[in-house]
Order: sequence, then C-alpha cells, then structure tokens
Amino acid sequence: MTETLFTGITQLVTPPPGPQRGVAMRNLTVVEDAALLVRDGVIAWAGPRREAAATAHVHDLGGLAVVPGLIDPHTHAVWAGNRLADFEARVEGVPYEAILARGGGIRSTMRATAAASVPELVALARPRLTALARSGATTVEVKSGYGLDFGAEVRMLEAVCALQAELPLTLRPTLLIHVPRTEGRGAYVRAVCEELVPQVAREGLAGAVDVFCEREAFTVEETRLIFAAARAHGLRVKLHADQFQTLGGTELACEVGALSVDHLEASGEAQIAALAASDTVATVLPGVTLHLGLPAAPGRRLVDAGACVAVGTDLNPGSSPLFSVQLALALAVRVNGLTPAEALTAGTVNAAHALGLRDRGALVAGQRADFLALHSPDWRELAYTLGTSPIRDVFVGGRNIQNIKETEL
Amino acid sequence: MTETLFTGITQLVTPPPGPQRGVAMRNLTVVEDAALLVRDGVIAWAGPRREAAATAHVHDLGGLAVVPGLIDPHTHAVWAGNRLADFEARVEGVPYEAILARGGGIRSTMRATAAASVPELVALARPRLTALARSGATTVEVKSGYGLDFGAEVRMLEAVCALQAELPLTLRPTLLIHVPRTEGRGAYVRAVCEELVPQVAREGLAGAVDVFCEREAFTVEETRLIFAAARAHGLRVKLHADQFQTLGGTELACEVGALSVDHLEASGEAQIAALAASDTVATVLPGVTLHLGLPAAPGRRLVDAGACVAVGTDLNPGSSPLFSVQLALALAVRVNGLTPAEALTAGTVNAAHALGLRDRGALVAGQRADFLALHSPDWRELAYTLGTSPIRDVFVGGRNIQNIKETEL
Ligand SMILES: [Zn+2]
Ligand SMILES: [Zn+2]
Repeated sequence: MTETLFTGITQLVTPPPGPQRGVAMRNLTVVEDAALLVRDGVIAWAGPRREAAATAHVHDLGGLAVVPGLIDPHTHAVWAGNRLADFEARVEGVPYEAILARGGGIRSTMRATAAASVPELVALARPRLTALARSGATTVEVKSGYGLDFGAEVRMLEAVCALQAELPLTLRPTLLIHVPRTEGRGAYVRAVCEELVPQVAREGLAGAVDVFCEREAFTVEETRLIFAAARAHGLRVKLHADQFQTLGGTELACEVGALSVDHLEASGEAQIAALAASDTVATVLPGVTLHLGLPAAPGRRLVDAGACVAVGTDLNPGSSPLFSVQLALALAVRVNGLTPAEALTAGTVNAAHALGLRDRGALVAGQRADFLALHSPDWRELAYTLGTSPIRDVFVGGRNIQNIKETEL
Repeated sequence: MTETLFTGITQLVTPPPGPQRGVAMRNLTVVEDAALLVRDGVIAWAGPRREAAATAHVHDLGGLAVVPGLIDPHTHAVWAGNRLADFEARVEGVPYEAILARGGGIRSTMRATAAASVPELVALARPRLTALARSGATTVEVKSGYGLDFGAEVRMLEAVCALQAELPLTLRPTLLIHVPRTEGRGAYVRAVCEELVPQVAREGLAGAVDVFCEREAFTVEETRLIFAAARAHGLRVKLHADQFQTLGGTELACEVGALSVDHLEASGEAQIAALAASDTVATVLPGVTLHLGLPAAPGRRLVDAGACVAVGTDLNPGSSPLFSVQLALALAVRVNGLTPAEALTAGTVNAAHALGLRDRGALVAGQRADFLALHSPDWRELAYTLGTSPIRDVFVGGRNIQNIKETEL
C-alpha cells in the first residue's frame, strides 16, 4: 500500500462526482488550503489541510490550485499523412471540391492511414497523445474511422491498444463508422453490422461504436442498424450528428441511450430539448469552429436547457488540429458560451460520463487520483489562459507523469 | 569570430527582407535541403546545402523546417494583479459597468501596477516573456500604460529595461498614453507632452510613443498633440485605433508617418485605403477577437488593398491573455483571413517594420540570426497547429535559448 498526502494546495476545485446537467454544471466545490490523500492510485480523502490525518509521506505542491485531470471524450488521434496542403489551399480560397479533385480531403488521410502499419500508426500518434497529456488530459478517447477497409480499421484500434500499453494516461478506443462506400452502400452497412462490429467486440478492440450521421455520410436508418448491431454485441453507442444538418440522428441517439452526441453545430430547439430530456451527453467541439470558421454549437443554450454538456478537442488533421484539451476548454468559454466552471465540469465528470466512466473526473474519495497542479493559485487560469499551459504537473493515479517528454509532432 | 553552419534543414523559409505589402506578403522563398551560415550572431549566407562552403563548426538540425524568429509588435506584458474575476463575471453575463462598479476593469490593473515596485513588475512579467519566447518570439514590444501617474509609467518602462538585461530576446519598450484623467483632462495631456514624453526620451526609456485613440480614451486632437511632442523629442509614434469607432486616428497616423496602427476591428474602406496608401503598418490582434468575442479586424481586405499587415498578441490581462505569438499567427489565419504565408510575413518582416527595425525578420545575409527550428519538416505547421508548440528550438543571434525555462505564470 502506498499512501501520499498532497499539501500546498491553495484551492482544491472539483465538480461533484457523476454527470452534471444544466446550470448545476456551475456548482464546483472549492476548498481553500486543502490536502488530498492518495492511496494506491485512488483518492482516499480530500478536504481542508487542517483536518488531514498525519501521514508518513507528504508531497507539498508549493501553493497552487489543483483540479481534476481532464478528459478528452472525442479525438481522431490516429492518422497518417498530413493535411497541410489542404489547409493552405482552403484558406487561400480553393473550394473543397477542387481540393478533393487534386487528391486532398479526407480520402488522402484514409489512403495514408490504410497504407501504414500498426507500428507506424503508433509512432505517429504517440506525440499527439503526449501533447494532449501535457495539456492536462489524463483520459483520452481515440476513434478509428480512417480505414479504407476493415483491416485498416482494426489496425487503427490495435494502434490504440499498443499505445495504451506504453502511455500512462487512459485511452478509450472507439470504432467509428465514418465514410460510406460510394458503391454497394447497403452491403457495406450489412458487413459493418455482421463482420466488423462482431470482430471488434470479440477481440475487445473498442468499448463503443460511433457513427457519422450526416447527409454526406450515414443516414439515420443506417445509423439505427449499426447501433443495433453494436448493442447486440455489448458495445455502447455514440454519434457524430448535427454538424451541418439535423437529420434526426440526435433524436435517435437520445432514444437508444447513446453515451453522447457530438458536434451539434446545427442543432435547434428540438435537438436541444431531446438532449436535455435524455441521459445522453451533448459534446461540443470548439476546435472545429475555430479551425473551419463554421458556426459554433449552442453550448450556452444546451446548458440552460438542462443538458449534460461535455467538451472535446476532436483532434484530427482536417477539421481540428487542436492538440490541447486545456485550450478546448478555454475555447468552449469563448466560442460556445460556457462559464469557466461549466467548462471544468464539461471537461471532467461530464466527459467521463460521455465515455461511460464513473470512477474519475471528481476529486472525492473513491475516484481515481488523476489531477492537475496548475502554475497559479487560482483555478480559473485553466479556462482563461490562451497559448501557454497553465498546468505545471499532471498526476495519473497519484503519479506525476513528467516523464511524458516533449516529443516531435 | 564564431562561425556555425546549420544543416539538416528540410525547408529554409523566408520572406524577403524589409516590409512586404499586399499579396506580395505571400512571396516566400522556400529552399529545400538548405544550410544557414551564422557568423557572430548574423546570417553570413543562406542557400542550398550543396552550395555551402566548408566550415569548421557544423550544427545538424536533423531534418526540420527553419523559419525566421517571430516578432511580437504589440504587448502589454508588464502588469500586476489579475483579471480572473472580471473574466469569470463577463462570461457569466455581468455587464462591464457592474464589473467596474465592484472595482474590476482596467483600473484594477492600474491600481495593482501602480502599487508594484520595479522588481515586482519584473518578476511578474518574466514568465510571460518567457512564454512568448518559447512560442517563437525573438523580439517583443512591451508597452507601459497601466500607470496611475507618471512615476508608475516610468517604473513600467524601467521594468522592461531590467528584463532586457536578463533575457536573451530583444525587448522594445513603448510609452503608451492609455487612459485619460476624468478631471483636468487638458492639463493631463499638456503634462504628458511637456513632462512625461521629454523625460522618457531623455532617459532613453522607450523608442516610441503609442496613444489609445477611442471615444472612451483620447481624441484625435489630443493624439495629434502627443504625437507632435513625441516627434519633437525624437521618438517614433504608433496608435491604438479603430477598435470600436473610426474617429480619424488611423488617417492621422498615416498622415504623420506613424510606425503602425493597431486593432482596426472597426476600420472601413477609408481607413483601409489610408493604410494601403501609406508606409504605416496595419497590425491586427486576433487574440482580442477570440477573447472578447468582438468583430475581427479586416486582415484579408487590408492585404488585398495593398497594406503592410502585421500580427501581434496584444498580450494583456483584460482583453487578450494570449501568451503565444505562434498562436497569434495561427489565429490570424482563422480569424483575420490571412494565408499561412501572409501570416509568416506579418509575424516577421512586417512586424519588424512596425517596430522600426530593418535588421531582422528574414533569413538572408546581413540579418540577425534569429530563427526557429520546427518539429516538422514542413513550415506550414507553424500556422496550422493549435494548442501545442510546433517549434522545437528558438535561436537568437545564432544561439539556442533553450535555457529559457518553463517558469510559473
Ligand atoms: Zn469527430
Ligand atoms: Zn494594446
């Protein structure tokens, strides 16, 4: 048994454990001059320093704010190739059709990813996940979805598995059914349901299945079929929806008890009401709004309506090259209208709920000892600071993961 | 004499030396497989590796893109106190008047700054400048402007002077005439012209005088008086203008040959035309747009009209807590419509011009050897990456300033 009492905490700041909805997302507990007792990687006690029991091993943090480790519930961190030429062309005004015509766009990422081996995918994703960890992420969801075929999808998930074996943060792999085939569309969806989903479930390669439900991607009916297959094989479901159009995907996801619906830029009253009435998390992705200059998801209205809102980076090469979950929270305040307290809740307990996790996100007894020591004695620096890290140390299971080096991107 | 040949450069990327205007801002030179010869802190030669002369000391960078060191032409990096409570209140919907009524707003920063000693101001500003340096800035302008009285203004400039003595990057102090007095307004402007400006010039505390020309600040006529005093004492002038209203400040600045006009969010055709017809730099500040959710300066239109456009962080606690000049460039692409190449020119030679400097910003013989080695072999990562640093090493005068530590913010 290892036991450490962390002291020197000006503010110990936490939402309550479990998902928080609506304006309850603002209800943080702030303990001044606090201490945190960690036993075998789990929080044994948290409270005012003066009430802490004597402990052999004391770790004085030096007078800084402590918040829960952040959770990034939406990334596509495994990819090969790059989209720098696409980026340059787009901001120079080249239409997306022309970018596609010259071999760019998502299919260039799919070709490069499909051509990469698992060790190559691991080497490419490692510095991205390291950057997310340095930005405060202690748990990160990673999706497949750039595979040209099922073999490539499986390799992407195997890469996540290999990365989990070497990195100290928790990775949560998700099978993403992303791009429909231009021919044999029905047969493809059937094969997803009858071959890919069962294989992924059997081999334990993912805990959830995600679908990209948009006019250019999968229909609501196709999504329903894939969700049914996932649930039949014991996998949770989640959804990319309402990015450009409201097709009914959000309503379907709420109806079947999906973990989350992500994007929501186009969501209107009906979708906001469906999310607010459900246990499904509404995940907003402000990096996409910033990078593409598209409308923002109605974060403020979702909270006010009573939804359980989370924030993710959506880290991916085409629409969100955002390598910081801290900056995602800071952007959620500027772009989606969340308050700093709501952003912290969105990035901790609510993001955990979006991954089906109940053991993390709050600094209370029984939760994992994943926490951040800031540079500042005031926790609000977390949502305020732009362009540098307000985070000094990242603790996972009570262990400082300083050994996560600044590796190449 | 010390001489080093830098090799292992996949792309040596530079604008031409001197200010670039209009779409000429896109004209970068990209030398593949390049080398850079540095002699006594100055670039002696740059070109293809195979054409480099033999040199005793070779420094292999390992296969990465190299770009000029970035120049931040607009910061308020010296302040005391913080605006975290203001930030939280504003995003929670509290009106600015109510924030002022409870003692917040810019006057709280002025009170805290006026109460701080020079060593205290130095200690507070050091980590901010360190963050800017790590983000790629090799030259940084720093303004006064939070002084409640002339003594405090002078202490702010003395703090910049003290910081220059200890930090490897170049700091350029500017006297900012920022907040008018509520009483004795005319007498105050006279005292600025007859006491403060002469003292600052005499003691060599600043190279330029800046004025905040807005309805809530100084009028165009007051600006004209202050500009005249500055020029009479051998100081260059620059201006905060068109942030909220177009009062004529931009036109005045162009008329008198100001170094730059900064902000420009409200600029219309007349102001854009004035800037395009002048030698005065148009400096856009995307951090303010992101932080406050206000309109963006018309960067795209300024470039298309033929202006010389620069980008700055505007680092300050109230309207732009942006601690990265790299992120400022990345935001200028998303927020102001610049292309990656235009953003690089804006952050190098054009920003140098906004500071009256001709010896830096381009990687050609005779310029200072201030340059950045990226993590990537492709320079476009500089403007693409959000939330982590695409910069591996920062060289000032040919010396890697890795010793700039990650200090507390
Ligand atoms: Zn996504
Ligand atoms: Zn300013």
